[in-house]
Amino acid sequence: MRKLRMGMVGGGQGAFIGAVHRHAAALDGQIEFVAGALSSTPDKARASGRALGLSAERNYGSWEEMLERERARPQGERIDFVSIVTPNHMHYPVARAFAEAGIHVVCDKPLVHTSEQASDLLRVTKRSGVVFAVTYNYTGYPMVREARELVRSGRLGDIRKVIVEYNQGWLAQQLEESGNKQADWRTDPSRSGIAGALGDIGSHAENLMTTVTGLELEALCADLTTFVPGRRLDDDANMLLQFQGGARGLLWSSQVQIGSENDLRLRVYGTRGSLTWHQEDPNALQFFPADGPEQVLRRGNAYLSAAAQRATRLPAGHPEAFLEAFANVYLGAAEAMRAHAEGRAPDPLLADFPTLEDGARGVHFIEKAVESAQSERKWTEARWAAPD
Amino acid sequence: MRKLRMGMVGGGQGAFIGAVHRHAAALDGQIEFVAGALSSTPDKARASGRALGLSAERNYGSWEEMLERERARPQGERIDFVSIVTPNHMHYPVARAFAEAGIHVVCDKPLVHTSEQASDLLRVTKRSGVVFAVTYNYTGYPMVREARELVRSGRLGDIRKVIVEYNQGWLAQQLEESGNKQADWRTDPSRSGIAGALGDIGSHAENLMTTVTGLELEALCADLTTFVPGRRLDDDANMLLQFQGGARGLLWSSQVQIGSENDLRLRVYGTRGSLTWHQEDPNALQFFPADGPEQVLRRGNAYLSAAAQRATRLPAGHPEAFLEAFANVYLGAAEAMRAHAEGRAPDPLLADFPTLEDGARGVHFIEKAVESAQSERKWTEARWAAPD
Amino acid sequence: MRKLRMGMVGGGQGAFIGAVHRHAAALDGQIEFVAGALSSTPDKARASGRALGLSAERNYGSWEEMLERERARPQGERIDFVSIVTPNHMHYPVARAFAEAGIHVVCDKPLVHTSEQASDLLRVTKRSGVVFAVTYNYTGYPMVREARELVRSGRLGDIRKVIVEYNQGWLAQQLEESGNKQADWRTDPSRSGIAGALGDIGSHAENLMTTVTGLELEALCADLTTFVPGRRLDDDANMLLQFQGGARGLLWSSQVQIGSENDLRLRVYGTRGSLTWHQEDPNALQFFPADGPEQVLRRGNAYLSAAAQRATRLPAGHPEAFLEAFANVYLGAAEAMRAHAEGRAPDPLLADFPTLEDGARGVHFIEKAVESAQSERKWTEARWAAPD
Amino acid sequence: MRKLRMGMVGGGQGAFIGAVHRHAAALDGQIEFVAGALSSTPDKARASGRALGLSAERNYGSWEEMLERERARPQGERIDFVSIVTPNHMHYPVARAFAEAGIHVVCDKPLVHTSEQASDLLRVTKRSGVVFAVTYNYTGYPMVREARELVRSGRLGDIRKVIVEYNQGWLAQQLEESGNKQADWRTDPSRSGIAGALGDIGSHAENLMTTVTGLELEALCADLTTFVPGRRLDDDANMLLQFQGGARGLLWSSQVQIGSENDLRLRVYGTRGSLTWHQEDPNALQFFPADGPEQVLRRGNAYLSAAAQRATRLPAGHPEAFLEAFANVYLGAAEAMRAHAEGRAPDPLLADFPTLEDGARGVHFIEKAVESAQSERKWTEARWAAPD
Repeated sequence: MRKLRMGMVGGGQGAFIGAVHRHAAALDGQIEFVAGALSSTPDKARASGRALGLSAERNYGSWEEMLERERARPQGERIDFVSIVTPNHMHYPVARAFAEAGIHVVCDKPLVHTSEQASDLLRVTKRSGVVFAVTYNYTGYPMVREARELVRSGRLGDIRKVIVEYNQGWLAQQLEESGNKQADWRTDPSRSGIAGALGDIGSHAENLMTTVTGLELEALCADLTTFVPGRRLDDDANMLLQFQGGARGLLWSSQVQIGSENDLRLRVYGTRGSLTWHQEDPNALQFFPADGPEQVLRRGNAYLSAAAQRATRLPAGHPEAFLEAFANVYLGAAEAMRAHAEGRAPDPLLADFPTLEDGARGVHFIEKAVESAQSERKWTEARWAAPD
Repeated sequence: MRKLRMGMVGGGQGAFIGAVHRHAAALDGQIEFVAGALSSTPDKARASGRALGLSAERNYGSWEEMLERERARPQGERIDFVSIVTPNHMHYPVARAFAEAGIHVVCDKPLVHTSEQASDLLRVTKRSGVVFAVTYNYTGYPMVREARELVRSGRLGDIRKVIVEYNQGWLAQQLEESGNKQADWRTDPSRSGIAGALGDIGSHAENLMTTVTGLELEALCADLTTFVPGRRLDDDANMLLQFQGGARGLLWSSQVQIGSENDLRLRVYGTRGSLTWHQEDPNALQFFPADGPEQVLRRGNAYLSAAAQRATRLPAGHPEAFLEAFANVYLGAAEAMRAHAEGRAPDPLLADFPTLEDGARGVHFIEKAVESAQSERKWTEARWAAPD
Repeated sequence: MRKLRMGMVGGGQGAFIGAVHRHAAALDGQIEFVAGALSSTPDKARASGRALGLSAERNYGSWEEMLERERARPQGERIDFVSIVTPNHMHYPVARAFAEAGIHVVCDKPLVHTSEQASDLLRVTKRSGVVFAVTYNYTGYPMVREARELVRSGRLGDIRKVIVEYNQGWLAQQLEESGNKQADWRTDPSRSGIAGALGDIGSHAENLMTTVTGLELEALCADLTTFVPGRRLDDDANMLLQFQGGARGLLWSSQVQIGSENDLRLRVYGTRGSLTWHQEDPNALQFFPADGPEQVLRRGNAYLSAAAQRATRLPAGHPEAFLEAFANVYLGAAEAMRAHAEGRAPDPLLADFPTLEDGARGVHFIEKAVESAQSERKWTEARWAAPD
Repeated sequence: MRKLRMGMVGGGQGAFIGAVHRHAAALDGQIEFVAGALSSTPDKARASGRALGLSAERNYGSWEEMLERERARPQGERIDFVSIVTPNHMHYPVARAFAEAGIHVVCDKPLVHTSEQASDLLRVTKRSGVVFAVTYNYTGYPMVREARELVRSGRLGDIRKVIVEYNQGWLAQQLEESGNKQADWRTDPSRSGIAGALGDIGSHAENLMTTVTGLELEALCADLTTFVPGRRLDDDANMLLQFQGGARGLLWSSQVQIGSENDLRLRVYGTRGSLTWHQEDPNALQFFPADGPEQVLRRGNAYLSAAAQRATRLPAGHPEAFLEAFANVYLGAAEAMRAHAEGRAPDPLLADFPTLEDGARGVHFIEKAVESAQSERKWTEARWAAPD
């Protein structure tokens, strides 16, 4: 199997998520990291690339340079895809340019700043036909896939209620003024977008909920708060949800909940049963049938669905975690890229990854939550439909 | 120490909570159950009393009879207090009559159907000077008292956020038409009041949150849903909260969350730390200081506050549970009654129990949540002040 | 239902377990505490009795006095049974005397100091026909009864292995010289017997294991250690077990494992499944079938066995704990006593309590473990058979 | 930083642990997999190598061929080290040959079949000066390193007791006759060695215990059982331990404990505190100081030791697991190899990996446990000293 060639934009020295993407892409030996424009500052970009072992000729000073020079390479040598791991504001121009150039895209979340940008990306991508994955990495966990299968199989019955929460505490203090690079851009509207905790982690919560339940949001009522003095974006977002068909929900995301590390949890309640999953204990999934005792489903066992079994590498009891889930997004996108290259339909069990539609829906969700919060925290219609 | 004499209204055959009250009252050997009007049907009342060993002369056919005949007994022989464990609609007339007659009252929650009734009870009780306890039993847990002390001591800093949830699943099906007595009255507005899950268990959540944090509610936005077809009251209540001073909160109570048994949880986040407590694992309290690792505080240890240590009977590791917490409400009320009899101030460490004010605030909370839900689920002002 | 009349020996001021017995006996309203000889010192005995509200005439200065004077009362007024809660060395003479006098006995564990004493008690009791219960209270937990039913039902298949552990840490320091009454007698061979941690809590572990599995011990290899300088009995006991039929086991009990409170755990592994139970989380029982996911069985649910359902008072999610389990031993013995009085066979579902045979087997177990430890820690034959 | 070149022996199609080694070695981008002799059957070896993308010229048919041809390459092009992931019986000849040839070795556990072989390897390795790592991967976990630091720092005081257990259930049935390759060789004495569960996983338990506590074993008493009919090696091993200085311990390893997946747990009790760690929840470490509440230490936090912080890649709450721990062994060995190449002392914080001495001690442990079990399960002296 030919390794796919990855170029990266962003993720240089001092970044956090770039290294995660590189680890994740490398994990299964199907992708090689061959090119990069790792910083918006050319010197820093090249220094980062050198430290990471990029060859000098593909260690670019800017993403524009990378695009131009990679396009100039022969088809069989250029990068197969670009991985965009910059602060949010750069997602749109970079993704648009590469997608338009026929280079597949893996882009971090939240996708872009506005629904207009998202719609434009959908159009461009449809036209060029490239694969576009958004790294909502948490839905890459095998037990999240099992959760989705439990819902799809009807074992939960009709869904009545969803509770999804994403709790962190690392921004309980004013870190953004003290040189913490991660805090700095995430709390800066020009780079992060219109939302803080809501966009950074609330969007993961939305994607997790939607992926597992398949429910479509109808309306929401959001309360966004900035607790830390001087901060420019929300650091705590709480909302009530209403889904098409009548199900209800609670969603919140906070970065000031001290004691919470990366505490993403999902609970789904149906007419026949319920389930609970917790990102910090990701190898387990609790299933509560209405008519019997709780079951604790564990990754790596033969009683799981094919979707869950295909998404795992190690036997039961040999825990997998964040990195493997992240790698599953890359694996899924890689299958779609290979299928694209080979002119075949992708294997649906393998090509299981969050799409551009997921990303666009996430942007719409953020906009609607901000709209609600700014409209006296009223209930706001929040249906999303992909543009034609 | 003289045993206090308890009369009971309600709690006859087929009831659930009456037996709990009797166990709880008996646990510490300070209270004896001597009289009762255990059902609204005289024959059933007397049959229940006989089964429980009440003497024939104090086994009454109605609460009115009990009141009249107990008042007629000499001061040293009559009941010291009445315990009211009927469906909600009977709380008000019974409590009012006994309080007016100078007999102390222990009353189940939610206190009454309306704030007018609550205010009237406050007036009557103030006038007669009796002790009035409301059995918000969950705040009787030692580790809830520890939680309250953690907040009071400042170890959490200023409170920013509260998450309180009370999840049950036993009403996920239509039990009320199939002869389940508990389901029957709880879903009947004429007996239960204007709220279902909200009143039955949401009121516990409100009391737990308020007791631990001391925060005063300013506004709320509530979404009440009835999921089970044919049901006449909400079985799922979700709301956003805003407290005086700016803290935010989420509160929900549901009786259709399959897999949840009696899952009451509280999380409180401050500027310096946070805490988590879970009713189904009541001997532990998680404390998360901002500057160090999580601590798991456990009942029965010397490092706990006096309030927590006084509320316990067994050494660490010998778990206490629901009944002991319930008994703590009775112990607290008993101390207040003894102090009343002896003309002294009660020991504040002992006389630690939910008061009539707590009950009245709970009724106000229910009304405001229903008001919000019925006003297009808008944010609704929800401040409460005790009437003068 | 007539209340049974209980007399108590031991359990006066400063004792721990006496109050537990009184709470447990009182919990269900079937037993009343009417007489006592609560200390070996007559003045202390009477002072304790007064504080607990015993009538002057039945507040005895010694157990001999209690026995004589109660026997002198008319049949319908004397105590139905004696509860013996003294330090271990007094169990034998008191139990023997009351049993011989035809008064039922509830006795704390370990039963007596030697197998000869145990055999004698078995003979005396057989002759007089009294009911004799030993308060191995941990087997009173509903989920322990469920565990026993799981084994009996064959759902675990043939048992291969048992792991039982009882961890405490309170004796990690030399408390016995600093006025801690509990530490004092437990580390004194003249009162405690030949074993320390082994006798005090290891005997509970043995009883739990045997009750749940029904396995008969064949041989053991024990290592007893005294870690705290100056202590006169073991404070840490570790052993390997071999059962008839070939199953293997590990049993240990320690009172120097800092951080352990009252951490009694049982694991049973069979050819078809396994189970795990933990005393500090007693409302749950984990069941692992060989061919499917873990199940978490919870007290109070309809899917449990009749034995587990009969042993509980509160609905699921309303946790029960130590006291209710202890009370179940009293309830079981009470049913046997009533059946005895009424000349009928006891209801086996109710009369479910640890017997004198259990107590005798426990004494034998302690002797064999000490014998092994003192014989160069060799494997020692450990079969037990009730004397003819 | 130059990537180290890895050759692999074993780990072809159908193997489990080979893929783990490759993932682990690749994770940090410091090692590249360039050569292999992936099976004992030349055709299978080459087919496996092709599937994994090895170049034809370094895809060898046998380890002897690999050794010869790699030695023939210029110094700067040959493999830096060999990774040996064969069944146990091939560890010795392969490791010996490469070590003698001056090629560094990473070898799976248990190291070899006999102490004589281990001593020989120690001599050969000392002579040639190569780096030799043994993949006791569980000690690569950051929180295991924290545990070791807790002990070293004295926060546990003097160690009194160690409990280490390694529970699996996958061999509860006779899998070895039904084509399960993993079961097949592990239960075959000619390939696995003199021990089954004891060697396969008990040796991990020994290494974990010794690494964390630093205690030296003095004597042990072992009971080895074969529960599954027809099996040729133990599938359940239970033992008592005695350490130099008087500490006691329990160690067991079983592969017939149904419901256990890969359940390795360690508990260490000292005079001042204790700790607990569990492989299936590896990001947490429970610390119990004698004088305060339990603390839950979590990976990725600033309050941890340098040793724990250096062994991690992701922020707190982003769980790491088995693969990262395994990769830490490779990272440690890689630092030692680089230091060797550069003629400098390795950074002790980085060069933290299980050594050949650890491997030799593990072999000795297995031999002593078997010796005890075969000598009427008597206590057997078990001190180990590295040969001069």
